Amino acid sequence: MITIAEIAKLVGGVVHGDASLEILAAAPIRDAQVGYITLADDPKFESKLRACQASAVIIPADFPKSEKTCVVVDDVHTAFAKIVKYLDPPVVDSFAGISPTAIISPSAKIGEGCVIHPYAVIGDNVQLSDRVHVGAGVVIEAGCSIDEDTRLYPRCVLYSKTKIGKRCVLHAGVVVGAFGFGYLTKQGKHYLSAQLGNVIIEDDVEIGANTTIDRGTYNATVIGEGTKIDNQVMIAHNCRLGKHNLICSQVGIAGSCRTGDYVVLAGQVGIGDHVDIGTGATLAAKSGVMNHIPAKSVYMGIPATPIKDQMKTFAVVNKLSQWYGKWKDMLTRIERIEALIQSIDSTSLTSDSDDDLRNGHQGKRAA
Amino acid sequence: MITIAEIAKLVGGVVHGDASLEILAAAPIRDAQVGYITLADDPKFESKLRACQASAVIIPADFPKSEKTCVVVDDVHTAFAKIVKYLDPPVVDSFAGISPTAIISPSAKIGEGCVIHPYAVIGDNVQLSDRVHVGAGVVIEAGCSIDEDTRLYPRCVLYSKTKIGKRCVLHAGVVVGAFGFGYLTKQGKHYLSAQLGNVIIEDDVEIGANTTIDRGTYNATVIGEGTKIDNQVMIAHNCRLGKHNLICSQVGIAGSCRTGDYVVLAGQVGIGDHVDIGTGATLAAKSGVMNHIPAKSVYMGIPATPIKDQMKTFAVVNKLSQWYGKWKDMLTRIERIEALIQSIDSTSLTSDSDDDLRNGHQGKRAA
Amino acid sequence: MITIAEIAKLVGGVVHGDASLEILAAAPIRDAQVGYITLADDPKFESKLRACQASAVIIPADFPKSEKTCVVVDDVHTAFAKIVKYLDPPVVDSFAGISPTAIISPSAKIGEGCVIHPYAVIGDNVQLSDRVHVGAGVVIEAGCSIDEDTRLYPRCVLYSKTKIGKRCVLHAGVVVGAFGFGYLTKQGKHYLSAQLGNVIIEDDVEIGANTTIDRGTYNATVIGEGTKIDNQVMIAHNCRLGKHNLICSQVGIAGSCRTGDYVVLAGQVGIGDHVDIGTGATLAAKSGVMNHIPAKSVYMGIPATPIKDQMKTFAVVNKLSQWYGKWKDMLTRIERIEALIQSIDSTSLTSDSDDDLRNGHQGKRAA
Repeated sequence: MITIAEIAKLVGGVVHGDASLEILAAAPIRDAQVGYITLADDPKFESKLRACQASAVIIPADFPKSEKTCVVVDDVHTAFAKIVKYLDPPVVDSFAGISPTAIISPSAKIGEGCVIHPYAVIGDNVQLSDRVHVGAGVVIEAGCSIDEDTRLYPRCVLYSKTKIGKRCVLHAGVVVGAFGFGYLTKQGKHYLSAQLGNVIIEDDVEIGANTTIDRGTYNATVIGEGTKIDNQVMIAHNCRLGKHNLICSQVGIAGSCRTGDYVVLAGQVGIGDHVDIGTGATLAAKSGVMNHIPAKSVYMGIPATPIKDQMKTFAVVNKLSQWYGKWKDMLTRIERIEALIQSIDSTSLTSDSDDDLRNGHQGKRAA
Repeated sequence: MITIAEIAKLVGGVVHGDASLEILAAAPIRDAQVGYITLADDPKFESKLRACQASAVIIPADFPKSEKTCVVVDDVHTAFAKIVKYLDPPVVDSFAGISPTAIISPSAKIGEGCVIHPYAVIGDNVQLSDRVHVGAGVVIEAGCSIDEDTRLYPRCVLYSKTKIGKRCVLHAGVVVGAFGFGYLTKQGKHYLSAQLGNVIIEDDVEIGANTTIDRGTYNATVIGEGTKIDNQVMIAHNCRLGKHNLICSQVGIAGSCRTGDYVVLAGQVGIGDHVDIGTGATLAAKSGVMNHIPAKSVYMGIPATPIKDQMKTFAVVNKLSQWYGKWKDMLTRIERIEALIQSIDSTSLTSDSDDDLRNGHQGKRAA
Repeated sequence: MITIAEIAKLVGGVVHGDASLEILAAAPIRDAQVGYITLADDPKFESKLRACQASAVIIPADFPKSEKTCVVVDDVHTAFAKIVKYLDPPVVDSFAGISPTAIISPSAKIGEGCVIHPYAVIGDNVQLSDRVHVGAGVVIEAGCSIDEDTRLYPRCVLYSKTKIGKRCVLHAGVVVGAFGFGYLTKQGKHYLSAQLGNVIIEDDVEIGANTTIDRGTYNATVIGEGTKIDNQVMIAHNCRLGKHNLICSQVGIAGSCRTGDYVVLAGQVGIGDHVDIGTGATLAAKSGVMNHIPAKSVYMGIPATPIKDQMKTFAVVNKLSQWYGKWKDMLTRIERIEALIQSIDSTSLTSDSDDDLRNGHQGKRAA
């Protein structure tokens, strides 16, 4: 429980309405009930806000004042997060230091302020810089290095020689550096390609739960600085992702692809091998990409097509079953016209094309 | 080895045929060989049953008697499972109690009859009700609660504040409560949204191996009572799934979606963010959903379309390459007709539309 | 650093060019820079090789000699791998033997030369043949057996009764033998089907990170000898995959499917339940399969269609939005022609079809 006056103080906001109102909880417009405070960051939500039962709302200065009690702030999301934290404080993990159950190779180097949870296993010559946080049951194979302030959530596995930059976050179940799926088939058997490369993850990369990134064949698979990757994404051997990409859930990128910077791949996109995606390009959800995608373009569909063309195609495809009947009808009508013309006294016709029509065509004719 | 007479006794069935027949193994129709018993639950399988080499069959009362020895029962699947168990008993895990290698925070509360396998890690203030079963290497972060008779298979990870109901089953590798994939981009960098919510899983939910369910931004991501989720499903932040949904493998549901009750999402379906799926709706495999789906409807395709329309569209699309030639031909024939008409002595024409035809159209004309 | 002469000796090759050249690193054509050695295995890469900055190249005998220093060998990839290993040696894990922290049931049998990493958990009656390698944190439930020289990477989970052949590789996060997703719905609740089967993986199978393979209902789910499976693949209960299949990343195969030998499923393919895929068949990426696929065929698309037909369909679909305008135009032109014919003095017409045209059709007419 908190009053609007207290909220305004907490978030540095200005109250319009009843400052003594007591607030029970905070929730987005869809979920807010009587006694709740909600948030609205865009005037397009005004009607939804009006329909919602929230008793109060956090809004920016340019938002129309609501009938509800308003708290006006500069940054709606930051303010709202403060309120949520106040009403339902996040749980803080009391664990610190290095668990005596963590198994750390004598040749590994562990920086200052690292936190290593129980049952983590850290191999030979691993290097952790300062303040690296290793979750429970994480396995870090020999020769890996992790730069400062990076956090690995429980059960991540890093295969040998993986390099991770500063301030990265790897969520539970992430596997980095497993073998690339490359085989040479000889006499009916598949032989695995070389697995001599590794994975390099640059600074400020975040990787979602159960995502997998395979090691390169001879060199590195690279994830560029600031790129964010959602859960259950698959990035194959030899890929080189640029900086500040956003790769949504369940995307699959086959071997040896490259992306520029600020590429956005929406959910379940699939990219064939050796494809380049230009800087600033966006692929809509479920797109299937077989060819290079130009910079700054937006593509959609299987196979991926510029979105404007694809939207037109979708619109036409939607009407296809209606048109199917029309085509049949059109064909019938053309045949009737042709038959009719056939039957007209030929003395009234003068063109050569008449002969073409009579003799050359596959249409059904009246006898 | 078991005789038909013994099987009939085991399952409470009535024998038609040779009760002394000895049975070696039990398998479905596709796999059954001589000496096997199989099962048939629907008269539509009669011809397959006849073609199969099984020596005996479990059938319901309304199934036509086979030439094979039959055992007639009320519930074919229950009876068959008893036979399979008799012939090839399931392996029972002898582990019980709480492993001394499990690391349990002193502030955690553990109910009666809980089983906690080796190397599980249980954080501060976690609450396990009675008979919760925690597999090897499971990690349960601070502030989680799990209600009675729920089982977590090995290597599940629950992030902080996850709430799980009664009688749930979470398979190996499930990750619940990792961060939602929401970023605000400022000056070329992506900043993670708030991660202040949690995940609430209601009673009788089952979750397949390596599935991931992200925590809500400010409030809960919710999985409704009795909903069953297959392997490798991705459910994003703020989603609220209804009761008794069936979510098949590799489905991806983007942020802030809602489903009603008894929704069925077939394999590899993708749902865009903020989409509502009505109660009783079904999405066919690989559908891509961008808009709300009405209750009780069946949709299919990318973008998802009512299945009747989609099936018609598929049928037409299949014929498109044939029609492509026909369209070209139709156009040519129209042009020829127009040219021919052009060439007819204009004195025989009386309509105004003649002028339109001569002057207005883009078709190719005879000179 | 290594000279070309030393490289030639290392790989048993013949030098064309400057044998004293010093090489800093080895990389494929895309990544090679000045001072690097690269490789080219196919004359089609000749122009790319010329454009690349590499100072030297490994080529086969039939490759045109480059301006760069060449080392000619029989097997380009084997030779290149030797050079990469020389310049950047793989990291070898020093761990051997059986970790004292591994928890092994007294009834388990462990062969000669097995390596069992820390925190592995091995259940009752498990049998490991010689030289099985069990990664950190692997969980092997009761009644499993693993044949010689198989390696499980960290965090794999094998449910009870899983059988694995010789020389298999299971990557981190693989889950084998979790429950099949089969439910019977009674009075609004979903009841799980029997889970009495297991998973059998034959010799020389490789399985990518975070892949899941579910146990059979009554009998086994089977993965045939020599089949290779990429990351994040889902194989459902009762499936029987043939020998030497290649199953790419994020493929999903629903329950009770069968594949012949040498089947190739490209990335993100989805296969409905009870489908048979014939020997030697290939499914292109993202295909959705609802019906049996004949042997040696290549299918593509949703629903999957023979690739030749599908490519024609894609080509037509690409032109649909152009044709949409043409259809409308064609229809208008047919209507105009009909109207024109209507208006012609009927005395010049002799055919019966004239009446059809006048009376029978739905086209718009000039008044």
